[in-house]
Amino acid sequence: MKVLIAYYSKSGTTKEMAEIIVSVLKEEGLEVRLSSVEKVSSKELLEFDGIIIGSPTYYGSLAYQVKKLLDESVSFHGSLEGKLGGAFTSSANIGGGNETTLLSILEAMLIHGMIIQGDSRGDHYGPVAVGKVDKKAENNCRRFAKRFSQLLKRLR
Amino acid sequence: MKVLIAYYSKSGTTKEMAEIIVSVLKEEGLEVRLSSVEKVSSKELLEFDGIIIGSPTYYGSLAYQVKKLLDESVSFHGSLEGKLGGAFTSSANIGGGNETTLLSILEAMLIHGMIIQGDSRGDHYGPVAVGKVDKKAENNCRRFAKRFSQLLKRLR
Amino acid sequence: MKVLIAYYSKSGTTKEMAEIIVSVLKEEGLEVRLSSVEKVSSKELLEFDGIIIGSPTYYGSLAYQVKKLLDESVSFHGSLEGKLGGAFTSSANIGGGNETTLLSILEAMLIHGMIIQGDSRGDHYGPVAVGKVDKKAENNCRRFAKRFSQLLKRLR
Amino acid sequence: MKVLIAYYSKSGTTKEMAEIIVSVLKEEGLEVRLSSVEKVSSKELLEFDGIIIGSPTYYGSLAYQVKKLLDESVSFHGSLEGKLGGAFTSSANIGGGNETTLLSILEAMLIHGMIIQGDSRGDHYGPVAVGKVDKKAENNCRRFAKRFSQLLKRLR
Repeated sequence: MKVLIAYYSKSGTTKEMAEIIVSVLKEEGLEVRLSSVEKVSSKELLEFDGIIIGSPTYYGSLAYQVKKLLDESVSFHGSLEGKLGGAFTSSANIGGGNETTLLSILEAMLIHGMIIQGDSRGDHYGPVAVGKVDKKAENNCRRFAKRFSQLLKRLR
Repeated sequence: MKVLIAYYSKSGTTKEMAEIIVSVLKEEGLEVRLSSVEKVSSKELLEFDGIIIGSPTYYGSLAYQVKKLLDESVSFHGSLEGKLGGAFTSSANIGGGNETTLLSILEAMLIHGMIIQGDSRGDHYGPVAVGKVDKKAENNCRRFAKRFSQLLKRLR
Repeated sequence: MKVLIAYYSKSGTTKEMAEIIVSVLKEEGLEVRLSSVEKVSSKELLEFDGIIIGSPTYYGSLAYQVKKLLDESVSFHGSLEGKLGGAFTSSANIGGGNETTLLSILEAMLIHGMIIQGDSRGDHYGPVAVGKVDKKAENNCRRFAKRFSQLLKRLR
Repeated sequence: MKVLIAYYSKSGTTKEMAEIIVSVLKEEGLEVRLSSVEKVSSKELLEFDGIIIGSPTYYGSLAYQVKKLLDESVSFHGSLEGKLGGAFTSSANIGGGNETTLLSILEAMLIHGMIIQGDSRGDHYGPVAVGKVDKKAENNCRRFAKRFSQLLKRLR
């Protein structure tokens, strides 16, 4: 089972979250590709069973570099049906748009016919780091990656 | 595998959608309980593998009768983890709040740790009837129920 | 100019936020009614130039007691056109649904044809208290009330 | 009073909506600039009292070309405070992401501290064209532009 983690990161915070998630996915025995979103072509999305997208919180939704990849994926519309998706974000403030950013990614995944899961504890829509990746954010990233792996195996 | 369809309906449109969904779920061999949301206690949610909630579109989110059930489910917070969820709505107008209504239900399901799936064709976030249940809405209900059944079996 | 602050509060946190907002609105010379949402009839909404609604974050949207008031306001649909609206919330966690709760209130206000304003600093969609009303939440409530007053006077 | 209408359009539908809105704003005596979003620099946003943004519905949120402009406007964060904003969209389907697209634009405007208004009739969050600009969509564009003009004058 193959998972893609595609992220955009300017300050390095979102990248740091991506790396934590990758380390847990590997511990769980999954084949993982970690890549900056600019180096992923929309066609490559087809190769993976799970797709996790990370973006900083910019004006309440995903960074345009991430949206570009999603917009271009329209060429393969319908081909991501049934794949597992997830999202994470870093933001400057609490209440600063992080939830709507996660939802902008998750909504795109739903429109692709993908499957997503929330979490009854911690960050419900996906891991959030406010300011920097503190212990709480790290734990939420680890927890998210573990749950993602388990569901991917269950869907197999 | 057991599925609950809980709906609130004043004019009968949402109920009509519920009945179409139920008929397909039964064709797919699932055990189904169809009930008005007022007759479901939050504790009963625990008994089902899949939960589908229908609400009219009232001011851009779920009817308060539906929200009451969800608010009361906090007593069992964590117990719906990993169950499959879905939502449908009827609304008076296009662009009249139907998408945000579906998302208000799906977000509650994510906060419960539930699993949801979108659809790359038709109504992406869940079936929508505008005004009445026309042929298109009926087809979207049938398609939704079929996909829900398939994913439930895959998750088993 | 008259403003209504209607809130639902179980633990007291949302009520505490409401009281801070009221104190600033009064300092600004506005006539204010503070009331638990259960004691407000939908018809009373018509009497005010500004309406501020506070709700705890329950499953990513407004408490059902608050939604009940909004659902019942359909009898006066169209009559709130051009009034100024605002929202605030208390939640248990960061990333725990507080933004989507604020938006569930603001979306209802937009559907009523009301006017809303965000904030480029602090809590963008409305004041948020996480856990309790700490100094930061208090400042955000005060800042929100001051901005609300200023816009209300400008709209006059 | 000056208003900017910035849009992205591939098929021409969003542009057609933009032109209808512009014609009404001019009838209302406003100074208007109509421009493709690619030809607007984020700095230019500062020159206008009102900003209206149009985008096709791509995967439930604004086109990346529109998001690019908003992301770049961070250099002037805080400078759009108190300006009036509005949004419109064209989409392929009902329930196909048009509401969440409008909200992705409106949320960005709120984060900029801007003022927005909904509509109790027609398209609540902003004009929507499904497929093509039919009579209903044209009327909603005209109605939206008229209301925008009136509020802009009231805010003056």
